[in-house]
Amino acid sequence: MRIRIIITGGTFDKDYDALRGELTFKESHLPHILKKVRCTVPIELEFNQLIDSLDMRKVNRKRILGSCINAGEERIIITHGTDTMIATARLLGKAQLEKTIILTGAMVPYSVSGSDAVFNLGCSVIAVQLLPAGVYIAMNGRIFPWDDVVKNIEKGLFEYRSA
Amino acid sequence: MRIRIIITGGTFDKDYDALRGELTFKESHLPHILKKVRCTVPIELEFNQLIDSLDMRKVNRKRILGSCINAGEERIIITHGTDTMIATARLLGKAQLEKTIILTGAMVPYSVSGSDAVFNLGCSVIAVQLLPAGVYIAMNGRIFPWDDVVKNIEKGLFEYRSA
Amino acid sequence: MRIRIIITGGTFDKDYDALRGELTFKESHLPHILKKVRCTVPIELEFNQLIDSLDMRKVNRKRILGSCINAGEERIIITHGTDTMIATARLLGKAQLEKTIILTGAMVPYSVSGSDAVFNLGCSVIAVQLLPAGVYIAMNGRIFPWDDVVKNIEKGLFEYRSA
Amino acid sequence: MRIRIIITGGTFDKDYDALRGELTFKESHLPHILKKVRCTVPIELEFNQLIDSLDMRKVNRKRILGSCINAGEERIIITHGTDTMIATARLLGKAQLEKTIILTGAMVPYSVSGSDAVFNLGCSVIAVQLLPAGVYIAMNGRIFPWDDVVKNIEKGLFEYRSA
Repeated sequence: MRIRIIITGGTFDKDYDALRGELTFKESHLPHILKKVRCTVPIELEFNQLIDSLDMRKVNRKRILGSCINAGEERIIITHGTDTMIATARLLGKAQLEKTIILTGAMVPYSVSGSDAVFNLGCSVIAVQLLPAGVYIAMNGRIFPWDDVVKNIEKGLFEYRSA
Repeated sequence: MRIRIIITGGTFDKDYDALRGELTFKESHLPHILKKVRCTVPIELEFNQLIDSLDMRKVNRKRILGSCINAGEERIIITHGTDTMIATARLLGKAQLEKTIILTGAMVPYSVSGSDAVFNLGCSVIAVQLLPAGVYIAMNGRIFPWDDVVKNIEKGLFEYRSA
Repeated sequence: MRIRIIITGGTFDKDYDALRGELTFKESHLPHILKKVRCTVPIELEFNQLIDSLDMRKVNRKRILGSCINAGEERIIITHGTDTMIATARLLGKAQLEKTIILTGAMVPYSVSGSDAVFNLGCSVIAVQLLPAGVYIAMNGRIFPWDDVVKNIEKGLFEYRSA
Repeated sequence: MRIRIIITGGTFDKDYDALRGELTFKESHLPHILKKVRCTVPIELEFNQLIDSLDMRKVNRKRILGSCINAGEERIIITHGTDTMIATARLLGKAQLEKTIILTGAMVPYSVSGSDAVFNLGCSVIAVQLLPAGVYIAMNGRIFPWDDVVKNIEKGLFEYRSA
């Protein structure tokens, strides 16, 4: 059971640029993290894009959808910025692929003290193995179906829309 | 769906004692970690014991079994040293409780650079919500049934016994 | 020999704001750091201001000068943003106080992986004890007199102007 | 002004061995640390030995003395375990070399959360540049002459013997 992880950037992978004094993208931390956490599940990493999800346009989301369609794997994790994660989940959900797709991300970058990135990745690695085909968001230790989730901007948390 | 986390120590929670120059136990990192990773699932923490699993005697394992039996929650995570995690899982598995029980731990302490602790906790938090009643080990990004797992001592990894 | 540390913010003390997705100021890390590094030199912490040094106006620098003049201690460390650290050092240097004053900061925040903050603090704690009265910058493992230093913006390093 | 750093191990450089479940030595963190902290002082690293200072015999200390004598640099930092750091300092002090020699170490390994290693290195890098010829210990933000220092075992701190 091979898992594909499609990397798109987001807060998860942001790094501090010491010269510009701001958070930006250098390269993904996923290869380093997967080794560190001793994950032995076969994983195929796909470096799809490295952008802030606020900068995601239709073309960016379609590139993600295309990768999901073309993937040989039936189990896919997508690392994604949290600001528009739900929009991408909706596009993927409506495509009704016969695959299990988990979107995840982080509220604090992996490179910053106090990050939730590695926890969210752990949640996603198990969710993608156990859940039936469908599109889900894994954040805050919970699994949200793509059509039953909202981001609470004030609290920085994902919640069930139906709750 | 409230989750109980039964803390028993193990490498997961070991801390460096600067005066003695060795790894020992001070207090559990679980309260801090759960807050940091923004987990919103209701969780009841139980401070059961803080010991190295090589020091676990029958009485220690029975205290864990007792906690599982008496817990009001039907979903339980146990943090445990990896050396005898399988022995405790076997005791719990044979008790055939109608609860979902996940044992997890770490090969590198949370307090040490390069730890797998937070990833394993993420794996467990999702596994305990998605799996049916039974006893499982969550390590290396995988879920092992209690009666189909061995620890590969040379590699420091858990593997399926049937593999 | 008591040391006063005047905290003014800068990259040294920046924290990630998960809700706004940017680096900002919460509170200084100095109290935590000094305890962690087991520093036993008597230190008086002064929370002067918490700002980005690009936002420093004349009034902000004068507040620092005032603190230096009024301080009971003859040995003073100032944590400061690197962008205008030299401007503040010049103001203090021209005041010709009979005190040893070290300005330091960081190119990467203490809260971010790969920070130089704690190293620079260590440099400053020794420099302030060993140097005669005067105003100096401690960065990159070097001591620069206030009137012989430039910041190399391209490299993110401090250099001797006379070099 | 080139500095030689003679690496001898000690708590500073200890790493966690996940298979044996204990702290041991892999390789020195100094090359990584010096790059991270943006130190621009020319530094020559010498990998002298990697041992616990409790295991240091006369032959080990003589190897350090030999390196100090043979070094082309007049400014030398020695990373060393704290348990017998004073014994090595005494051997070097009595040799009365015309060089500035700073011994330093850590109470908590660099690889462990809450380490004092990088702070102590910062202290040493400045001390070695500013102090006259002699042998000193840099710990706890202080500089101790080799013949006026004791280690307070109960507190895990270095103190002046004359105090």
